[in-house]
Amino acid sequence: MTAINTSSWHHVVIVGGGFGGLYAAQHLKNAPVKVTLIDKRNFHLFQPLLYQVATGGLSPGDIASPLRAVLRRQKNATVLNAEVTDIDPKHRRVILRDGEVDYDTLIVATGVSHYYFGHDDWAKTAPGLKTVEDALTIRRRILLAFEAAEREPDPQKRRAWLTFVIVGGGPTGLELAGTLAELARVTLKEEFRRIDPAQANILLLEGRERVLPPYPAELSIKAKTALTRLGVTVRTETTVTNIQEGTVTIRHNNGEEHIQAQTIVWAAGMKASMMAQVLANRTGVELDRTGRVMVEPDLTITGQPDILVVGDLAHYAHQNGQPLPGVAPVAMQQGHYAANLIKARLKGKRLPAFWYFNKGNLAVIGRNAAVADLGLLKFSGFPAWLAWIFVHIWYLIEFDNKVLVLFQWAWNYFTRKRGARLITGDETVPVLEKCFDTAPERTYITTSSRGR
Amino acid sequence: MTAINTSSWHHVVIVGGGFGGLYAAQHLKNAPVKVTLIDKRNFHLFQPLLYQVATGGLSPGDIASPLRAVLRRQKNATVLNAEVTDIDPKHRRVILRDGEVDYDTLIVATGVSHYYFGHDDWAKTAPGLKTVEDALTIRRRILLAFEAAEREPDPQKRRAWLTFVIVGGGPTGLELAGTLAELARVTLKEEFRRIDPAQANILLLEGRERVLPPYPAELSIKAKTALTRLGVTVRTETTVTNIQEGTVTIRHNNGEEHIQAQTIVWAAGMKASMMAQVLANRTGVELDRTGRVMVEPDLTITGQPDILVVGDLAHYAHQNGQPLPGVAPVAMQQGHYAANLIKARLKGKRLPAFWYFNKGNLAVIGRNAAVADLGLLKFSGFPAWLAWIFVHIWYLIEFDNKVLVLFQWAWNYFTRKRGARLITGDETVPVLEKCFDTAPERTYITTSSRGR
Repeated sequence: MTAINTSSWHHVVIVGGGFGGLYAAQHLKNAPVKVTLIDKRNFHLFQPLLYQVATGGLSPGDIASPLRAVLRRQKNATVLNAEVTDIDPKHRRVILRDGEVDYDTLIVATGVSHYYFGHDDWAKTAPGLKTVEDALTIRRRILLAFEAAEREPDPQKRRAWLTFVIVGGGPTGLELAGTLAELARVTLKEEFRRIDPAQANILLLEGRERVLPPYPAELSIKAKTALTRLGVTVRTETTVTNIQEGTVTIRHNNGEEHIQAQTIVWAAGMKASMMAQVLANRTGVELDRTGRVMVEPDLTITGQPDILVVGDLAHYAHQNGQPLPGVAPVAMQQGHYAANLIKARLKGKRLPAFWYFNKGNLAVIGRNAAVADLGLLKFSGFPAWLAWIFVHIWYLIEFDNKVLVLFQWAWNYFTRKRGARLITGDETVPVLEKCFDTAPERTYITTSSRGR
Repeated sequence: MTAINTSSWHHVVIVGGGFGGLYAAQHLKNAPVKVTLIDKRNFHLFQPLLYQVATGGLSPGDIASPLRAVLRRQKNATVLNAEVTDIDPKHRRVILRDGEVDYDTLIVATGVSHYYFGHDDWAKTAPGLKTVEDALTIRRRILLAFEAAEREPDPQKRRAWLTFVIVGGGPTGLELAGTLAELARVTLKEEFRRIDPAQANILLLEGRERVLPPYPAELSIKAKTALTRLGVTVRTETTVTNIQEGTVTIRHNNGEEHIQAQTIVWAAGMKASMMAQVLANRTGVELDRTGRVMVEPDLTITGQPDILVVGDLAHYAHQNGQPLPGVAPVAMQQGHYAANLIKARLKGKRLPAFWYFNKGNLAVIGRNAAVADLGLLKFSGFPAWLAWIFVHIWYLIEFDNKVLVLFQWAWNYFTRKRGARLITGDETVPVLEKCFDTAPERTYITTSSRGR
């Protein structure tokens, strides 16, 4: 074992431990650099499966990997669990809430969060799905809604408890709607005594003319058919104009409508995280309409060759004029490119511009149902679902050998149990104006016929 | 299938879905009664494994089963997710926060919570371990302490971040201390760059002269030896006299001492839940020193043959003068007895007094280490650990076929990964007065030797 002093090594600071930041760190493993990965969370979150946490199929621990565990064997990498508040490009310094870190090259990969199109007051009523806490909030609300419906004597109020509105017909919205339909129709079957959870009204609202707008039209149609078969009401060309506790107001071709719904989930707009504005303030870099950072062909920002932006936070329009979509494969490839660029520079070499290799798009709708667009090959149904499972488990395993998730998945698939259906947090019981005042006077099945 | 009207059936209301309440409900399955199980949580929690959640080995979903899922096929049972605030024994009525439920027989099984011996202000600094939220709070504090230590430049403060004090040498205290030692010495090994987590100072404090006071003395000695080998400092005859943010004050034979520790966990006192006081107010029943309800030989309360108290909430001293311990097997057997008593009464029969059959006691200290007291047979080490695993998995499976936990357990055992190490909730980063202001200037290992 040879120990060498690294104090003079090139220092790469990466802000954000998502797909972009973590891939950049990992691909710098054999480079003569020091890497410091800063994140305000101590884990990498596998966001594509977050909707499974929101619907009680997986636990947060199943889809999260401690960053220190992932980078444990990478001796040139240090993880810093801290919050970045500012940067100082002149002195090449990142400012933390309680300190500062010098860099030679900075990679910013802090991603995006929800955007309510100027209606930030909707956030409280219609939470989005970006963090573990978001997922647990949505899980609590969904489960509490069924509990409240079971105890609600007023039929109209009960209907509102059993109405679930998902705003946004992208992959997250579809996955949530499809899984929620399965939860109501399969998992919760026979678990309640007064309500039939299968009567739940699950609405998926999309402003444009079809769900999954970036996908080929034929797959959008297949996705809609699959969702409808699962019992989801898909309403396209429907815009949300207001959200208040218990009510969603929508506008469509036939005018305005008020939907009484106690559970509303936001899966529509996205805006760049706070670091984009910090970069704009400190370097003058241009931001796009949703606040993302306009990057150069090599992912640096104008006039700042030492600052790179990767992943959802970057607006990369050098490939076909359109910005690349905010999906995990783009972030991974950009993280990898950033690492390669740093390694090339240290050797005095140059790299061609970043080029995204699109391996295809996959969206899952429910058990056995998904759509896949692999360019020439488009398919749906069970084969697409299998492909989806395979790809997702593959990436999970890559980080943390999470083979357990595979077991959990198989278990859920065969038993349909969704065992992580816990109402946790501050409110754990529904509080109604007045609930049924005696035990349900329903007609029970006699002992003799119980064995059916 | 014959449907019969049950509106005239005897109505058993059970408050609390722990071991006592759930066993009572399940053993009334084939009785001609209606059962309503009321709990403010929607799940049964397998409390004996809660310390695994607090140390990142299991997720809450792994040790919790939705009550509705457990009782799904029991057609005479209804689950009510509600909070009981009072009872009205005269009208045989349970009062909810938002309604009321009539009963013919009431079983109260609401258990116990922490008791700080009159120092309720200690609760904020030294949380106990009774709920999922408690476990997540302790998990966050433990993980944040290591993160803070990694960033703390002041050696004395760093030492305080790496000092963990567990108050109480009962099974929970032992399990927490042993697992925490493994976390620090095995799981976190090589994950940090500035600190060595193995240097963590883990203190287990017990007021009496030995740990596990209710066990035979030879097992207490074995438990202490095993803990010491794991790196835990066990201090007996040591009483906590004060707890403040960052400091535990203790008193022992040599006087008073102040321990600087940022992470303190309370595993000492227990007091009865609020329902005991409600029962005392409404029926005049006697409570013991810790607030538990003094019960008759048939688990009813004096003068109220229609009200039974089972589990940790009951003080049952008719067996050998000493109250039965607050452990799961007692609660299970009492729940079973309560169901039998109700069934016997409906047939006009009588039952002999409740009698606890003690199958033995088990406490786990860490990987491969446990102590078992099966009456004549006392053993420790790996065989006791295997017995412990077997018993716990057995009961988990009984409720919810949680075979996955077995996989998770095997996985953790072989990889020692503890993958559920997530810092979640409000604070996710340590905030220090001032952290290291540059990346660590440590001596990294070169690439060539990385493969060791």
